[in-house]
Amino acid sequence: MKIHGRHYRTIWTRPDEAVEVIDQTKLPHRFETAVLRTPEDCADAIRRMVVRGAPLIGATAAYGVAFAMKKEASSKALIEALDLLGSTRPTAVNLQWALKRMHDALHNRGHADRFQIAWAEAAAICNEDVEVCRSIGVNGLAILREAAAKKSGPLNILTHCNAGWLATVDWGTALAPIYMAYNEGMVVHVWVDETRPRNQGASLTAYELGAHGVPHTIVADNAGGHLMQAGRVDLVIVGTDRTTRNGDVANKIGTYLKALAAKDNGVPFYVALPLSSLDMSLASGAEIPIEERSADEMLKMTGRLPDGSIATVEIAAPGSPAANPAFDVTPARLVTGFITERGVCAANEAGLRSLILEK
Amino acid sequence: MKIHGRHYRTIWTRPDEAVEVIDQTKLPHRFETAVLRTPEDCADAIRRMVVRGAPLIGATAAYGVAFAMKKEASSKALIEALDLLGSTRPTAVNLQWALKRMHDALHNRGHADRFQIAWAEAAAICNEDVEVCRSIGVNGLAILREAAAKKSGPLNILTHCNAGWLATVDWGTALAPIYMAYNEGMVVHVWVDETRPRNQGASLTAYELGAHGVPHTIVADNAGGHLMQAGRVDLVIVGTDRTTRNGDVANKIGTYLKALAAKDNGVPFYVALPLSSLDMSLASGAEIPIEERSADEMLKMTGRLPDGSIATVEIAAPGSPAANPAFDVTPARLVTGFITERGVCAANEAGLRSLILEK
Repeated sequence: MKIHGRHYRTIWTRPDEAVEVIDQTKLPHRFETAVLRTPEDCADAIRRMVVRGAPLIGATAAYGVAFAMKKEASSKALIEALDLLGSTRPTAVNLQWALKRMHDALHNRGHADRFQIAWAEAAAICNEDVEVCRSIGVNGLAILREAAAKKSGPLNILTHCNAGWLATVDWGTALAPIYMAYNEGMVVHVWVDETRPRNQGASLTAYELGAHGVPHTIVADNAGGHLMQAGRVDLVIVGTDRTTRNGDVANKIGTYLKALAAKDNGVPFYVALPLSSLDMSLASGAEIPIEERSADEMLKMTGRLPDGSIATVEIAAPGSPAANPAFDVTPARLVTGFITERGVCAANEAGLRSLILEK
Repeated sequence: MKIHGRHYRTIWTRPDEAVEVIDQTKLPHRFETAVLRTPEDCADAIRRMVVRGAPLIGATAAYGVAFAMKKEASSKALIEALDLLGSTRPTAVNLQWALKRMHDALHNRGHADRFQIAWAEAAAICNEDVEVCRSIGVNGLAILREAAAKKSGPLNILTHCNAGWLATVDWGTALAPIYMAYNEGMVVHVWVDETRPRNQGASLTAYELGAHGVPHTIVADNAGGHLMQAGRVDLVIVGTDRTTRNGDVANKIGTYLKALAAKDNGVPFYVALPLSSLDMSLASGAEIPIEERSADEMLKMTGRLPDGSIATVEIAAPGSPAANPAFDVTPARLVTGFITERGVCAANEAGLRSLILEK
């Protein structure tokens, strides 16, 4: 998608065999990029959320494996890189999916070829992600068209966290249908949940929607239920970091609360996902590990001072502790449907299997 | 309650016939007080949330009427003061309750007596509020004792926004039972919702619980559902700005989402209120006016810089608009019970009438 009229992906290769990414810890205050040259660079970028979003984490990890193969193409180095990168963040399954794919592509190959194979495989993961997200957009667009046809005035869509193009290589998951609807002239408006504590809604979703020109309004995470009660939300679309085979959805903390409110008010609640976010090995969401992040994310806030400089302030009562679980699980019973690259399906095992078996 | 070992109320009179309040816009970063001398001072303090919380707003407005009578004890001046103070904030009904009480005490009295009568009536409202909150604490304590008896380990209570002593003259509503439980040695722990956008949880509830020594943990507003799913919340207690005769509860935005999660997880959800927060004239919560506050509360955040100075930073994507509804309505069906100064009752008209008729 475009920033200041120039097309970007979130991750791209450089002529010097390094990888460059948009530094998402600096957004929305500064647009800066970071260069990654080693597996450690990639692991650090994932851990510090320089890159985030389940699909983009997977893509970055794939390049991390390639960098390891560049330095030393032994099987020991391969396993060490997989371990290093696999331990960065626990909840999103795309990370494990991408690392398994890199392993499968490399482990039977000669050492001399491994770097080139890994480099090409990481590029393939990125290119396929773009195509997958584009297909999610097309499939979700049909739902938005149908909803828009039923009402007058703008179609109001609420989203939580950032499942836009900044969370993927391009297009996004939850936001892909919205970009396509906007591009074809549909009158859409997005309620952007702020998404405390890291504010990915107010920082990233608002940033990318604004850069593309999509009308949107930032609201507190607390506001969605009230907006739904007042009939001001036509549907909800969110992303997911891992979906289990019964249709339970792990996504950014607070998603579950919005799903409850949607159910209580008869608002359709869709989850957009690449099938790489599906974990058929887990029977239900209760088995998904939930990442606990630093209390500092709750206790401090970064922003722009009046002089334009960036500062971090402590916002809470001095001395009070904080807890910071980063994800919650939305039970399948609250999900209207899954929007995937292969079509839309019911949020249950039969629905998911119908898409997988089509392969 | 105590701050740094000294007992405070949130509002008190001075020897010079002014009123002094804790400036809650400065907490938790600075403990400062503000002096109010005119009806305009009081209206401004309510509007800017120097004082906030339904009971404290009522008490401050009562002194505003007294200041008007000091300057000019005419009936015209009385009506003007009632209008000025009554228009400051729309949702909390205690404001109208306190102003009606001041009107009733004054309108048939001679002009020469009006200031002294008003001053005494405002003091009576404050003293009665302390007693009412103490009684809410006693009645809620019975619920906490029963819940604590059913489990081992600390009793985990989640609260939203600030319905503590800073929201009242002393003791608080939702927090009064918790202070009493703590004071008698019960092992309690409070999950403090941050309460965006004004962060009254992280700023005020955490501040006052910390000052009293009550164990607590700040969490994002997004986290409560996950904590309940994980069995880490034994009960929820919140306050209310207005409760209608069918038992619907207007409280700080986001309360409804926590009530939905409590219902979904079988967690008791109590609302603590002085009966002055009850509006029997309204059939349901749909009739309660919901205050829309400035978008700046969403887009900016104030905190402490590393050097200890206070700064306000812009936190969202530049140019993105925000909406800021300040309250939502929790339907009575989601409320386990009301904790009032006259006892605990069911969240319906019969329950409320049983307490009122006892008068």
